[in-house]
Amino acid sequence: MVASTQKFLEQIDVFGIAFYEGRGCRTFHDPLPGCESKIAELVRTHTVKSLNVICHIRKATNGRVCLENTHPFTRELWGRSWAFAHNGRLKGVKDWPLRFYKPIGTTDSEHAFCWILDQIRRHHPAPPKRDMAVLRLVRELTARLNGCGTFNMMLCDSRYLYCHCSTDLSWLTRRAPFGEAHLIDTELTVDFAKETTPRDIVTVITTRPLTHHEPWQVMERGSIVVFRDGLPVGAYRQSA
Amino acid sequence: MVASTQKFLEQIDVFGIAFYEGRGCRTFHDPLPGCESKIAELVRTHTVKSLNVICHIRKATNGRVCLENTHPFTRELWGRSWAFAHNGRLKGVKDWPLRFYKPIGTTDSEHAFCWILDQIRRHHPAPPKRDMAVLRLVRELTARLNGCGTFNMMLCDSRYLYCHCSTDLSWLTRRAPFGEAHLIDTELTVDFAKETTPRDIVTVITTRPLTHHEPWQVMERGSIVVFRDGLPVGAYRQSA
Repeated sequence: MVASTQKFLEQIDVFGIAFYEGRGCRTFHDPLPGCESKIAELVRTHTVKSLNVICHIRKATNGRVCLENTHPFTRELWGRSWAFAHNGRLKGVKDWPLRFYKPIGTTDSEHAFCWILDQIRRHHPAPPKRDMAVLRLVRELTARLNGCGTFNMMLCDSRYLYCHCSTDLSWLTRRAPFGEAHLIDTELTVDFAKETTPRDIVTVITTRPLTHHEPWQVMERGSIVVFRDGLPVGAYRQSA
Repeated sequence: MVASTQKFLEQIDVFGIAFYEGRGCRTFHDPLPGCESKIAELVRTHTVKSLNVICHIRKATNGRVCLENTHPFTRELWGRSWAFAHNGRLKGVKDWPLRFYKPIGTTDSEHAFCWILDQIRRHHPAPPKRDMAVLRLVRELTARLNGCGTFNMMLCDSRYLYCHCSTDLSWLTRRAPFGEAHLIDTELTVDFAKETTPRDIVTVITTRPLTHHEPWQVMERGSIVVFRDGLPVGAYRQSA
């Protein structure tokens, strides 16, 4: 996707990306226009394969643009690296008390992330034996945050990727035989057969579908989908 | 220092670097040979000025080489980003119990870092009014760690840079008028007048002096020096 990434980078102001590599998590943050950025250029040509990648992009329309306010945010819990990116606004969340994790920057998003990890740590000082216990808690916590405004988010603990849809979130799984995809925003076509091996399974989650003629799953408002190893392992309506 | 950095990168296997930019801390980690690395290339040409930079390099002689084992390590405490790099071995430290911070990788260094932050958090759940209280505690903690082996380390809380010398640590402050420096390892000369402004104050701390004919301060074994804004603000013998 090298060519398309270049075009795409020209349209954005602020971006950040987190790649999981083994237990480690590598982040690149760039509060500068993408087309001028050497960091964007590095990400464009970064060929390391990762089982989980979280990317966040935005126009610099509001909020101070600086490194500490740039998503994805990361923290350590249970000796795992957690990463978080959010799209939306959350009213009043910065008044919610925090105990273990404190924001470094000033965004409502980082405060919400700290609050989620605070609550997980409070309920589970050590990782619970059953992964479902964490999922259940993440569902409760994201539902509460959703009550404060718009909360489209991705949260990864290096194994599971939790995606909460408040207003806009869609996903698509591609697997062999890989074909061509036609981007909606530009006239570009990407041949995924050239970018993948037959054994790859690739799921893309975005605020809006990126391509024509592919079976995007548009998530329901107020729902959560959990992914592991590139595949959905659970989908839940928050109102249920 | 672009030219010298290139030469230098060819000689190392594993490197990592942390740049403080405002309250944010940007890290680049590279568990690959430096001369082949795009990340090394980015760092070489990264021109952002930073008030605190911590860099860690080593030959891949021992320990699994992977992202999560690559210094500097970072964690958040009191809403500040802390970074840590260590040179040496610490016997038995991985048996020391941890409460708040857990290692993501398997190094004794990251365990020691987690233990330091654990102890600081335990004594000061919020930042103490007097910075001296943290310094006093860091002195105690580093002295205890030093008892386990070799503990040359740098620890930064985004304001203060704490440097503990176990066997090898030297530092040098350069300020206007900046001149030429002649590197010890190679025949290269660097003209710092070209790299600085007259108002800059630049302190370099390394395991061994890097240049000839400059007034390097070789730290005493078992001593700690604290820097702020590029200048030493305190020096202490641990045995005192």
